[in-house]
Amino acid sequence: MKYPARVKLIDVGPRDGLQNEKQPVPAAVKIELVQRLQNAGLKEIEVTSYVSPKWVPQMADNAEVMAGITRDSGVLYSVLTPNMKGFEAAVASKPDEIVVFGAASEAFSQKNINCAIAESIERFAPVVQATLDAGIAVRGAISCTVGCPYEGEIAPEKVAYVARLMKDIGVQRVDVADTIGVGTPIKVQKALEAALQHFDIAHVSGHFHDTYGQALSNTLAALEVGVWNFQSSVAGLGGCPYAKGATGNVATEDVVYLLQGLGIETGIDLDRLIDAGQFISEHLGRPTQSRVAKALLTKRAG
Amino acid sequence: MKYPARVKLIDVGPRDGLQNEKQPVPAAVKIELVQRLQNAGLKEIEVTSYVSPKWVPQMADNAEVMAGITRDSGVLYSVLTPNMKGFEAAVASKPDEIVVFGAASEAFSQKNINCAIAESIERFAPVVQATLDAGIAVRGAISCTVGCPYEGEIAPEKVAYVARLMKDIGVQRVDVADTIGVGTPIKVQKALEAALQHFDIAHVSGHFHDTYGQALSNTLAALEVGVWNFQSSVAGLGGCPYAKGATGNVATEDVVYLLQGLGIETGIDLDRLIDAGQFISEHLGRPTQSRVAKALLTKRAG
Repeated sequence: MKYPARVKLIDVGPRDGLQNEKQPVPAAVKIELVQRLQNAGLKEIEVTSYVSPKWVPQMADNAEVMAGITRDSGVLYSVLTPNMKGFEAAVASKPDEIVVFGAASEAFSQKNINCAIAESIERFAPVVQATLDAGIAVRGAISCTVGCPYEGEIAPEKVAYVARLMKDIGVQRVDVADTIGVGTPIKVQKALEAALQHFDIAHVSGHFHDTYGQALSNTLAALEVGVWNFQSSVAGLGGCPYAKGATGNVATEDVVYLLQGLGIETGIDLDRLIDAGQFISEHLGRPTQSRVAKALLTKRAG
Repeated sequence: MKYPARVKLIDVGPRDGLQNEKQPVPAAVKIELVQRLQNAGLKEIEVTSYVSPKWVPQMADNAEVMAGITRDSGVLYSVLTPNMKGFEAAVASKPDEIVVFGAASEAFSQKNINCAIAESIERFAPVVQATLDAGIAVRGAISCTVGCPYEGEIAPEKVAYVARLMKDIGVQRVDVADTIGVGTPIKVQKALEAALQHFDIAHVSGHFHDTYGQALSNTLAALEVGVWNFQSSVAGLGGCPYAKGATGNVATEDVVYLLQGLGIETGIDLDRLIDAGQFISEHLGRPTQSRVAKALLTKRAG
């Protein structure tokens, strides 16, 4: 089996990981987390989002966080936004990339952003155009590419459909997300291959939640089709809003351990990454969700 | 990628899973657990061990448990034993298979069974011969085939060495165990391929601990080399004595979910299996370690 020689990880912990936290996390803590992630070698970090604070109060400090981080020229800092109002605020903080988010499930699109998939793309179009005009990169997140909490299994054709619509409006690369973590290797490969009909291999990333414990085997399956960009969340930050008590994002530490074991270059220092995970886990007063961090911290404690 | 069409799972929960429990688990509970596992469709169950109760007090009720289970002619009931004294006791309870256990790490062999690998095989030889003479099957468990808590990484050559020694004394099939869960896909494939030098594909099983969260990706990697026998533990019973607080055996539920997702036949009813896991988890007063069980129980509670 041939695997890619190197993999780029996008840590989504500061945004996707923290966004559902009930207790406000101070901007200074978020800034420190970003700093620790870049010190650990992460080259892409999803920092915050520009959505209504009515919907996501945890991200209300977006401008403060973006102003507070010490940028490294080798690191890409991305932010999410759903509309022009968010774009105007986002662009002021000079992100390297803006992320729009759609779904491969009509029902999920309705529940999450209150419109059909095609309509959501129409709403993104001016945001994407304005972003490109501003010389900023654009990524499209596609949620529910394998399963949906409302619809059940999602056909790969739906993923190809959204990917094509995103391509048409100028989105440069896409995330294929198993938002509820129900995917298994063949299903995930089919979803990725659907996106690969419209984007090349450098522009498709895997985003696998670990709710059913399948994220690493899905990552392995994705590597086998050549995918070399993945999203993950330090300490496994981010629960699953559709299954209370279940885990959400796969932990970056666990992915790094897998990749290192396969001899794949990541540029990430696992010890520093574990420290970053401990920093935020201690702040949140919760144990890390990373199994690798748990095992290695126990070993450290000796 | 071609996967085997069907997989046989050996649930080791009643033995490997429960053996390190501090509080005695009543024989009636163990018997009920075995019953629930066979009702869920498990065709192989590791029931108990015949070792000195001084070392493993939890298994002191071996004869009572073996006498208490209601056997299904389609199910294989195995027991562990290290020596002739254990064999004499084991054979009286008419197991279908007797398991001897060695290691691919000299240091682990010394710490676990107080002798070098070659010496351990010499000790097993009369047990294996007596077992075969009694018309009972013999399996050999090989621990630490990827990593060892004392030696670190283990070379595949060591696995091949132990596999050959086991083959020479009459062992009919072997388990390739990643006892401390440090393995990643390529390393695990190499360990399996080492055993496959001496045993055919039907006679090599994978036994992966989930301490580092890698067990399912290792299972996927094992399927890719054609392995179709795996060991796992309902509810992920069994901690890791070498990493306190870390998980041990991969949960049978999680493996079944992976296999079902791949379209591989297991003959197992996942809902009944989850019920079996809940039965023992409630008895132990602990949440299940199975992510699939957690997610599906949350969904059931809806």
